[in-house]
Amino acid sequence: MEINNLKNTIDNYLKEYFNEKDSYNKTIYEAASYSINIGGKRIRPLLFSLTYDIYKEDTKKVMPMAAAIEMIHTYSLIHDDLPCMDDDDLRRGKPTNHKVFGENMAVLAGDALLNEAMVLLMKQSLTLGENSLKASYEIATASGAEGMIGGQVVDILSEGKKISKEQLEYMHTKKTGELIKASVVAGGILANAPDDDLEALDKYGKKLGLAFQIKDDILDITGSCKQLGKNPHRDEELNKTNFITVYGVEKCEELCKQLTEECIEILNRLTVDASSLKELTYSLLNRQN
Amino acid sequence: MEINNLKNTIDNYLKEYFNEKDSYNKTIYEAASYSINIGGKRIRPLLFSLTYDIYKEDTKKVMPMAAAIEMIHTYSLIHDDLPCMDDDDLRRGKPTNHKVFGENMAVLAGDALLNEAMVLLMKQSLTLGENSLKASYEIATASGAEGMIGGQVVDILSEGKKISKEQLEYMHTKKTGELIKASVVAGGILANAPDDDLEALDKYGKKLGLAFQIKDDILDITGSCKQLGKNPHRDEELNKTNFITVYGVEKCEELCKQLTEECIEILNRLTVDASSLKELTYSLLNRQN
Repeated sequence: MEINNLKNTIDNYLKEYFNEKDSYNKTIYEAASYSINIGGKRIRPLLFSLTYDIYKEDTKKVMPMAAAIEMIHTYSLIHDDLPCMDDDDLRRGKPTNHKVFGENMAVLAGDALLNEAMVLLMKQSLTLGENSLKASYEIATASGAEGMIGGQVVDILSEGKKISKEQLEYMHTKKTGELIKASVVAGGILANAPDDDLEALDKYGKKLGLAFQIKDDILDITGSCKQLGKNPHRDEELNKTNFITVYGVEKCEELCKQLTEECIEILNRLTVDASSLKELTYSLLNRQN
Repeated sequence: MEINNLKNTIDNYLKEYFNEKDSYNKTIYEAASYSINIGGKRIRPLLFSLTYDIYKEDTKKVMPMAAAIEMIHTYSLIHDDLPCMDDDDLRRGKPTNHKVFGENMAVLAGDALLNEAMVLLMKQSLTLGENSLKASYEIATASGAEGMIGGQVVDILSEGKKISKEQLEYMHTKKTGELIKASVVAGGILANAPDDDLEALDKYGKKLGLAFQIKDDILDITGSCKQLGKNPHRDEELNKTNFITVYGVEKCEELCKQLTEECIEILNRLTVDASSLKELTYSLLNRQN
């Protein structure tokens, strides 16, 4: 499926998802829907469904898992933006969740998105069977204390401290990389990809996740608020160590290009045509936000 | 299995669970472990595993699901206690999570517990198969926006407002009742209980959940801080409507007894001997904290 078509399918699925809900507690759906439909790039669900798509044809069938992945990503942003965390006012060009709905509702909206993601993963697995459950387990593990949350913990604990290159790489591998890698691998598992391909997808996902984070750090320095939809130079303000503070912009741009080329080489060795994934990989290298 | 033995088994499982973890980000395990091992009554995992136990004999096998249920309950307490929510300093006679680890770590410890619970549910389902996945889905749905989180939302939105009896019952059915009911039903599903029994367990769980919440409201008025391990009269302070403000203490005590008797009648009609569940039901009516 063409990348833009797939993005539209994901956008529509997420838009309709919370619209259908109505109850005493509809505020929570409004808060959740606000952050999920604020215009994300949908990189993780795209990676998941494009990977599935290069092996199988019925990609619409796996939209629940694509949506679940985006819900997990979105909940992590809502909680990261809270006053007691990074204290951000702006996300994707709009006020952050707690600025609109209050801190208590933002905590609950995040909780609800994480919980709903898991409900969706289980529901899909009840229909699609064991491969879906294995893929769900991959996603759930990647988003937990040994993955995304673990990275966020190290990020918070290292604020205002000088951290080593190893700690920096650990932090980013976990905070951003794990869910990106798991999205790719889950697509492969669900599509029943051959073992050699699964191994390759794991490597690809790792390198892509790292390239993605380095690019993020570059944009935090070189991008404008308008372009990024969030305040730039936040890492500097919070006195955080990132790839730029360790390697400098030029070296980071080199690293990013090199990792992208390595990603493409891996994709070239798969048993199927991965043109769409290659296109997405290049677009992530060249993105401006 | 005898109730106290089962409680010890659950306690030990939870104690060891986070001890095994060690990594860069061990603070998150310390924070999670602090709240989970602070001495809860383990009512939900007990209800789950006792229900399983009246049908099957290999109850130790389902400890991952028992632990997952307690993790979900614990995460909800950590987030409920946050300054932006109920702002509580004391829980189970000890300082609340954010008082010890800071607000940011308390948010993340809650997230990590919810996430880890889902990982455990999926992991167990990969081993035990479809009934385990169905039971997991029951738990995950009950803890989400249509269940526990939904109740918490109505609770927060109704602070300082007069709410109707219907809203009060909705709020408590969702906030406390859903996970209690789901714990019972999940035990039955996992044990492959007959359909008639599953229906009965659903009714039992609903009534028990309501009785449990009414008893909680009574204790909030009649209990001391030492006895409860948390500050009493919190609902009054926060100007919240509860069963006491609507019905008064005497009527609430009557309601509680009546619901308990109805619970026992339902258990008497099951196809198996439910003595252990009956014992737990009475002990919940007579509890002092």
